[in-house]
Amino acid sequence: MPRIVIDPALVERYVFELAEHGAYAATGVWRPAYSPAWQAAQRQLAAWFAQAGLSVRYDAAGNVWGRLAGQRGGPAIVTGSHIDTQQPGGRYDGALGVVAGLVALQAIFAQHGPPRRPIEVVSLCEEEGCRFPGTNFWASRAILGLIDPAEYETLCDEDGISIGAAMRGAGLNPEQLGTARRDDLAAFLELHIEQGPVLEHAGLPVGIVTGVTGLRQYVVEVRGSANHAGAFPMDLRRDAMAGAAAMIGEVIAAAAALGRPAVTTVGRILAKPNYPAIIPERVTFTVDVRHPEAQALAALFARHEASFARIAAECGLEVDWQITLDQPPSPADPALVELLEQAASARGTPFARLHSGAGHDSLMLARIAPMAMIFVQSKDGRSHTPAEFTAIDHAVAGIEILADALYALAWSDQMTR
Amino acid sequence: MPRIVIDPALVERYVFELAEHGAYAATGVWRPAYSPAWQAAQRQLAAWFAQAGLSVRYDAAGNVWGRLAGQRGGPAIVTGSHIDTQQPGGRYDGALGVVAGLVALQAIFAQHGPPRRPIEVVSLCEEEGCRFPGTNFWASRAILGLIDPAEYETLCDEDGISIGAAMRGAGLNPEQLGTARRDDLAAFLELHIEQGPVLEHAGLPVGIVTGVTGLRQYVVEVRGSANHAGAFPMDLRRDAMAGAAAMIGEVIAAAAALGRPAVTTVGRILAKPNYPAIIPERVTFTVDVRHPEAQALAALFARHEASFARIAAECGLEVDWQITLDQPPSPADPALVELLEQAASARGTPFARLHSGAGHDSLMLARIAPMAMIFVQSKDGRSHTPAEFTAIDHAVAGIEILADALYALAWSDQMTR
Repeated sequence: MPRIVIDPALVERYVFELAEHGAYAATGVWRPAYSPAWQAAQRQLAAWFAQAGLSVRYDAAGNVWGRLAGQRGGPAIVTGSHIDTQQPGGRYDGALGVVAGLVALQAIFAQHGPPRRPIEVVSLCEEEGCRFPGTNFWASRAILGLIDPAEYETLCDEDGISIGAAMRGAGLNPEQLGTARRDDLAAFLELHIEQGPVLEHAGLPVGIVTGVTGLRQYVVEVRGSANHAGAFPMDLRRDAMAGAAAMIGEVIAAAAALGRPAVTTVGRILAKPNYPAIIPERVTFTVDVRHPEAQALAALFARHEASFARIAAECGLEVDWQITLDQPPSPADPALVELLEQAASARGTPFARLHSGAGHDSLMLARIAPMAMIFVQSKDGRSHTPAEFTAIDHAVAGIEILADALYALAWSDQMTR
Repeated sequence: MPRIVIDPALVERYVFELAEHGAYAATGVWRPAYSPAWQAAQRQLAAWFAQAGLSVRYDAAGNVWGRLAGQRGGPAIVTGSHIDTQQPGGRYDGALGVVAGLVALQAIFAQHGPPRRPIEVVSLCEEEGCRFPGTNFWASRAILGLIDPAEYETLCDEDGISIGAAMRGAGLNPEQLGTARRDDLAAFLELHIEQGPVLEHAGLPVGIVTGVTGLRQYVVEVRGSANHAGAFPMDLRRDAMAGAAAMIGEVIAAAAALGRPAVTTVGRILAKPNYPAIIPERVTFTVDVRHPEAQALAALFARHEASFARIAAECGLEVDWQITLDQPPSPADPALVELLEQAASARGTPFARLHSGAGHDSLMLARIAPMAMIFVQSKDGRSHTPAEFTAIDHAVAGIEILADALYALAWSDQMTR
């Protein structure tokens, strides 16, 4: 396996120039899907793809594809990620994976000429679901042919603009979305920042991802009686806040006691009526539960649900919960994981096997193609913030592994399917 | 001591007709201070005061006073309460105390003629602090001469209307507020609904209030690090929600373990950024702590503050707290309490001694006059809701005691000061 030479300066230039589209404060990026800044960034990538010798195509969802035709044809090896950001996000979440794919293809093509098999880099749209909540991996779902035309008008941003209207504003025709479907992917490889502190704590530049976590989000509603904070003795209260605090404490403690890789998060809470001198009648909170193994995940769900029911009964409260998101674990393809590990080992690049605790387009695309991911170290584990940062040598260490693996797949035809 | 005869039908008529001003849904009242509904209710009371033979006066704060001149002059015996409501509130909180004073004076005057000492009934404005947060017993502070003219423009309602502008809109001149000051109160008696379930649970119509609770409100801010709910292992988190839940659980449990009359309430909570998949960086919550005894109150403060500090340290979080309200306990006047108890006993009306866990104008007016309060039973302990209800026989039982005591004070001149 030849080692592909990656130019750190080129990686840095692409990351920084791309970040100018939607630049926010000193180091942030505010680039929601289909916004003018996002459109400009996609045009920029299309130009770079073309300069690198790739043939460029926009699909009906607005994804930009750069392709090297294979001498042999057949299904395509694909790499890439997304360039939409949180509001605000940083320069690396998503964008680094698109830059990585571009740099890798550009380097292999320059160093080894045309591939045997077709290979593509893609810049996907609306992964964060940040402008349009509920899109749930819009670009990937378009590629899978899973978007219901009703969604064009029902999924809206904060200003009430539907995703269909936003697409038309970006020169796209949602009625054509069916044409974005692909059934010719041989593999999907995605490089992404870790978004967590595990690699940094272990002193490793790179992680090879064994799978994307399963996750469930609950909305839990605890109901008691609103009464006067001064006039109601403790022993006669039905205090929704007391019950909610006990539930929150217990679910967080349960995941903490299990230890890695179990995680449980209460990120959102609302009390009603939310006045200092009134005992809350209703407290609503979210519970986000993740584990990469299906059985352990199911056990954690059962344990949390038992906590909700038991504490409500003990406190004389009512409780209901709804499941608002439910994703089974999505394992990476073992052969691709092995290929990435071989590449890392051949380079002498130290790495860890880890799972992804966050969702990614890979989670969706794994339904139609063998999938694997490479993580690169995130400073302080930060993401979704202008403060997110990945050192260029860590990015390059990941891109080298990606490039070597892509070479093996498309140029040396090491894995045929 | 002669027993004053109270007409239940008149009490009921006044309560129901007054509730028409600002009527909200079937049984609610929405009557914020200085609103048109509130102005109409004050005019209605002024008319009833005049019909009852009282001389009527508006002061510069908008309080309406009805007075019977004493044959002897000197400081005045005063009774009354407020008629502003929560948004929405019910028919009884505040209003019943004004009606009680009017009915009592009307009955005594009709049955026994003019008093020896001056006696007044007053309908106070903005007790709830609901339209203008931070007013902190506006009417009573005006009577005490404690309002800073800067407050006219700094205290604003949700729509940004200052209390000064609202007063001018109601035909009042805030610049004249100093003239509302009184230094000639011989006693202040207030009848109020209990707002709690203690009398109902004990099967008693009436409570004699031994004092108004001391209370403190904290705003507690817990700070950790916002990170991705999936990508951050439990053992590396600085989860502000985990710390806040532990603190909330502990302060509520501490008051519950102490038992009556200690109460601690967490009524308001806000998380930042408040997204399901992000570990909260900051959780802010209020803690309302009450006890009628100063020493026990101080011990509870110390215990809660120790919880905040210890849990923050254990969880690797930062914590700050601010005290936004701090009222020492305000004991009722022992001689007035005894007078009320004698009246209840003479009537054969069963009663309990209890403290007020809620703040009242009496708390402020106790600074310039001996004060006492009568509570009447609240159905289910409810208040600050259209569902609040006091049975007419319970109201009358309280008004009888009030009337007998007022007779003793102003007609028979039983207590001279």
